[in-house]
Amino acid sequence: MKTRAAIAFEAKQPLEIVELDLEGPKEGEVLVEIMATGICHTDAYTLDGLDSEGIFPSILGHEGAGIVREVGPGVKSIKPGDHVIPLYTPECRECKSCTSGKTNLCTSIRATQGKGVMPDGTSRFSYKGETIYHYMGCSTFSNFTVLPEIAVAKIRDDAPFDKACYIGCGVTTGVGAVTNTAQVEVGSNVIVFGLGGIGLNVIQGARMVGADKIIGVDINDDKASWGERFGMTHFVNPLKVKGDLVAHLVDLTDGGADYTFDCTGNTDVMRTALEACHRGWGVSTVIGVAEAGKEISTRPFQLVTGRVWKGSAFGGAKGRTDVPKIVDWYMNGKIEIDPMITHVLTLDEINKGFDLMHAGESIRSVVVF
Amino acid sequence: MKTRAAIAFEAKQPLEIVELDLEGPKEGEVLVEIMATGICHTDAYTLDGLDSEGIFPSILGHEGAGIVREVGPGVKSIKPGDHVIPLYTPECRECKSCTSGKTNLCTSIRATQGKGVMPDGTSRFSYKGETIYHYMGCSTFSNFTVLPEIAVAKIRDDAPFDKACYIGCGVTTGVGAVTNTAQVEVGSNVIVFGLGGIGLNVIQGARMVGADKIIGVDINDDKASWGERFGMTHFVNPLKVKGDLVAHLVDLTDGGADYTFDCTGNTDVMRTALEACHRGWGVSTVIGVAEAGKEISTRPFQLVTGRVWKGSAFGGAKGRTDVPKIVDWYMNGKIEIDPMITHVLTLDEINKGFDLMHAGESIRSVVVF
Repeated sequence: MKTRAAIAFEAKQPLEIVELDLEGPKEGEVLVEIMATGICHTDAYTLDGLDSEGIFPSILGHEGAGIVREVGPGVKSIKPGDHVIPLYTPECRECKSCTSGKTNLCTSIRATQGKGVMPDGTSRFSYKGETIYHYMGCSTFSNFTVLPEIAVAKIRDDAPFDKACYIGCGVTTGVGAVTNTAQVEVGSNVIVFGLGGIGLNVIQGARMVGADKIIGVDINDDKASWGERFGMTHFVNPLKVKGDLVAHLVDLTDGGADYTFDCTGNTDVMRTALEACHRGWGVSTVIGVAEAGKEISTRPFQLVTGRVWKGSAFGGAKGRTDVPKIVDWYMNGKIEIDPMITHVLTLDEINKGFDLMHAGESIRSVVVF
Repeated sequence: MKTRAAIAFEAKQPLEIVELDLEGPKEGEVLVEIMATGICHTDAYTLDGLDSEGIFPSILGHEGAGIVREVGPGVKSIKPGDHVIPLYTPECRECKSCTSGKTNLCTSIRATQGKGVMPDGTSRFSYKGETIYHYMGCSTFSNFTVLPEIAVAKIRDDAPFDKACYIGCGVTTGVGAVTNTAQVEVGSNVIVFGLGGIGLNVIQGARMVGADKIIGVDINDDKASWGERFGMTHFVNPLKVKGDLVAHLVDLTDGGADYTFDCTGNTDVMRTALEACHRGWGVSTVIGVAEAGKEISTRPFQLVTGRVWKGSAFGGAKGRTDVPKIVDWYMNGKIEIDPMITHVLTLDEINKGFDLMHAGESIRSVVVF
């Protein structure tokens, strides 16, 4: 079949909107009509050539929502007509990781996904006879895409695609880090470093679970009103703090935060986030992706005196199990998405979405097909 | 009253055995006759002048067991004749840390303890009219010592002092790191770095809770038989591993250990211990005390992909609550102590105990009064 899609032919070049060829779903695969897709920093990271493992030419995009149009042989859990969110972190429920009950990092198709192909080792996309690769197992910058059955979360039919798509990455990454990874309890004091989209979702996750102080930290004062919009109770601009930032934050939280989250990707900030934790029990969760080669450091005394350093990928969410719940939270008003969708674009305007992101002018741009 | 004790007059000098003056217990304090005390690396660390906060002249020793001989006004939980283990990590059950239920690091008397004095700001020890300071709130290198009520754990009367004293530090630090801090479950794969006294106690803690593989790592082959004695199932000498140590350990544990423990104090080993953890859920616990100024480092990717870095002090044990249970475990044969007590000395021989430790010839030397 044919599908309209935005191809990344090579790094550092605008996406090109073309009509390309898509093979139908093979065994264990489903064909999904993507109705909407967010444009995430990770797409930009790859397109900008910063990901040493980036593969071109490919169809980027990993934050989508759509409708199943066809299923391949052997598919049992999904049928045509089902509304779904593609999962770049699948959930096979069979591998050592899934059955451990301790992690969401399913490893069943990791090797082929990293190579830009489906589990059978081939791509479904081609253009003028040339192979076009999949991206993060999703490729949502295409009106139609093929996904493994284990890499789609079935969601309720009444969730609007142009909002639900954000749950495919940003919302789940931030909210899930609070609920799954850190498991913040009611009454906790929380510090969130970096008030981009992920940071705002951490903030609203903390609000949802009943955190007490929710302190946002960002070097851009303009972010303060965004943070407040989603539940931030205090704002700290490190550039305006006299003296030591850690000491200031520890003072604000009566000895340190119960939970801190790095949403910056800056390894110096990650250290600050750990050290701003309360002695004895503070837990710091790294969410941001650091530059290649950068390392985090601290004195081991920070750990021996009870602070815990952990990290979160896809919010610790098991895709097929947890993503539908987060959709419910949105539909029930426990979390908000609408105000975060700052720009709605057509596929033809997709490069504008990247420009807005680079200019810091969007929280989330969504492409609607 | 008078008591025989080993005074550390200054760093890097042998202890001197003298008879000194001890004031009786004031309000909330108890007088304990120390029956036996271990000689721990932390005592040596201070005596060797490596602890920048070390205070002299003082009575070192923090790993003792004895009998309460007198109690001061207001003491309710302890009476003369009770057998006790002094606690360098007290348990007041009133401070923010104790009531959090999340940490054993009671903060109620931390400030004065760090200054070598009792909670009222004064010392009970003096020699020829000169103040002699307390050490770690314990000073067990004295036949009699005074302790806050909240800094003694009442234990059963039938536990032998010359073994139970080791529970005052080393046993609890190692076994407790397994049971309290890491909370190792039955069937786990565990790697223990450094097979000194702490490492052996981690090993037997892992055996007690039913760990599967218990891998000991040490650059000294002579430690292998010690590890096996307490439950180690595999021994790895890093100097004899061809290629990358982390890869070797990950291979040995089918993807990485569920739990690793650093018992070396070497920050490079701490990194190895983290990175030898299983992707998705491996937990690495730092127990060893690092050299001043040394830092731990890793790529944040290690955390984002599910490894957790934490630390343990006094085995995460709440002294008054958990130490009596560990004494029970010893008395019931769940853990062993006797073979670890390699040398029994008199107070007059105490400097020999430090010599044995520095020469690597002892697991634990115990002074019996």
